Amino acid sequence: MNPYTYESVVHLRDTDATGRLYFPRAFDLAVETFEAYLAHCGLPLGDWLRAGTHAFPVVHAAADYLQPMWPGQPLRVTLTLEEAGTTSLPCRYEISDPAGQTLVQLRLVHVMIDARSGEKKPIPKDWRQRLFAGTPGPDASATTHS
Amino acid sequence: MNPYTYESVVHLRDTDATGRLYFPRAFDLAVETFEAYLAHCGLPLGDWLRAGTHAFPVVHAAADYLQPMWPGQPLRVTLTLEEAGTTSLPCRYEISDPAGQTLVQLRLVHVMIDARSGEKKPIPKDWRQRLFAGTPGPDASATTHS
Amino acid sequence: MNPYTYESVVHLRDTDATGRLYFPRAFDLAVETFEAYLAHCGLPLGDWLRAGTHAFPVVHAAADYLQPMWPGQPLRVTLTLEEAGTTSLPCRYEISDPAGQTLVQLRLVHVMIDARSGEKKPIPKDWRQRLFAGTPGPDASATTHS
Amino acid sequence: MNPYTYESVVHLRDTDATGRLYFPRAFDLAVETFEAYLAHCGLPLGDWLRAGTHAFPVVHAAADYLQPMWPGQPLRVTLTLEEAGTTSLPCRYEISDPAGQTLVQLRLVHVMIDARSGEKKPIPKDWRQRLFAGTPGPDASATTHS
Repeated sequence: MNPYTYESVVHLRDTDATGRLYFPRAFDLAVETFEAYLAHCGLPLGDWLRAGTHAFPVVHAAADYLQPMWPGQPLRVTLTLEEAGTTSLPCRYEISDPAGQTLVQLRLVHVMIDARSGEKKPIPKDWRQRLFAGTPGPDASATTHS
Repeated sequence: MNPYTYESVVHLRDTDATGRLYFPRAFDLAVETFEAYLAHCGLPLGDWLRAGTHAFPVVHAAADYLQPMWPGQPLRVTLTLEEAGTTSLPCRYEISDPAGQTLVQLRLVHVMIDARSGEKKPIPKDWRQRLFAGTPGPDASATTHS
Repeated sequence: MNPYTYESVVHLRDTDATGRLYFPRAFDLAVETFEAYLAHCGLPLGDWLRAGTHAFPVVHAAADYLQPMWPGQPLRVTLTLEEAGTTSLPCRYEISDPAGQTLVQLRLVHVMIDARSGEKKPIPKDWRQRLFAGTPGPDASATTHS
Repeated sequence: MNPYTYESVVHLRDTDATGRLYFPRAFDLAVETFEAYLAHCGLPLGDWLRAGTHAFPVVHAAADYLQPMWPGQPLRVTLTLEEAGTTSLPCRYEISDPAGQTLVQLRLVHVMIDARSGEKKPIPKDWRQRLFAGTPGPDASATTHS
């Protein structure tokens, strides 16, 4: 998997009265990127939420803010997966401006659980393959998400 | 039912880069007030969401913004129920400052539906009584919400 | 101006524990669309916020919710400007799914004010021209927003 | 300073379609707590934002999620200040349920900057005293925030 790239812009909704990005919204940008990546890999979030079997909550989140971000500023978010454990998936995100300057660095760790019991369970083998290949799986052509 | 009152303050999270309240967040304040009122009436949202039988989505929302709102500004939200239909509940909210000046006026219409089928169904009689009495029902003492 | 179109998707951040779009977030989608349209017309929000001369707050907001919206659902938002007054600009938004079914209809009214005094002032003539032409103005080539 | 305590509840706006707290919203709870503490110490955010001299952005944010959080759940947030540097203030937050069980642990580091130049500058001596005393300063009686 090469780093996956998601383009966005700083929307008014994500700023605060200091005139800058309200810092927790950088995590929202990371989540949007992860959702886009899941859809890209043929694992759209909406589908497995509805199925009600798996959940993939975040157990650790961290961010370093290197530069302020202003309304209207174009952004590029790059996602890189770290090595997955049996049940956990650590993800690194870098938010940069169009000139390539790093603005925020984030790290999120997801843990796979059973959606009903809340117990940890292994990341399914086919998820693992799709996520690390970074390419749509065999039946991804059936999805309309992009 | 007398108007129900909810106290809050303009938090940074609800402002934007213009320095004021980001206008959609006035609806969040109304929803917080409705949640507090439901708990006050012995109908805490968390309980009936978990039960999975009823849902009470908003089908119409409107707001008039009379005055800007600034970070740190103390707010009072008053909720007044309009006459309910068989399945619908219109609610009026007024957000004012401590001096009593009206800042925003809102109106939300909820419709009762079956959480699974999505079909409209009558507002349960005991909900109707509790909501319009504005007092906790007989088993509200069992709830820990306030 | 033909209707302006903005594509998005229902992100997890915009849903709530009922499993659907949290209704105030439909206003965020309208604002995102307006921001994209302003940039398209060569009037990027970030620029005139920084200049500190104009503000364009919303004084009226309304929405009708026709269909629920689920995480991952692709959306199309179309913006149509109504006839502007001297100081006010009413905007209609329709959020629909890829099959063209209308999900939410919104109407927002902006009023042009002086950013410092808060007094109403006329919408600048060149803003009016750009907004209703729906095409970038003569110096829009100088902006990097898209 | 004893730990400062802020009471809240999981609002619908802070949940997502998984039925739980949407994880970035735990940072919003920490920020709300910090705003309440600033007001408590006679340093209300709205006042110094308007003055336009200081800004106190977050440069590092981290959270560990130990337990899921559900809509309607009552919460207690406790804030403990770590030792401040010349320009930086690290803050620890613990979100717990009414029974005292820890749900989320957070750490935020603020850095004092000049609001106009963006350059770091020392935390004013009187801020430092008020923040670490955890009691309103001499002119706090003039504020209406609580």
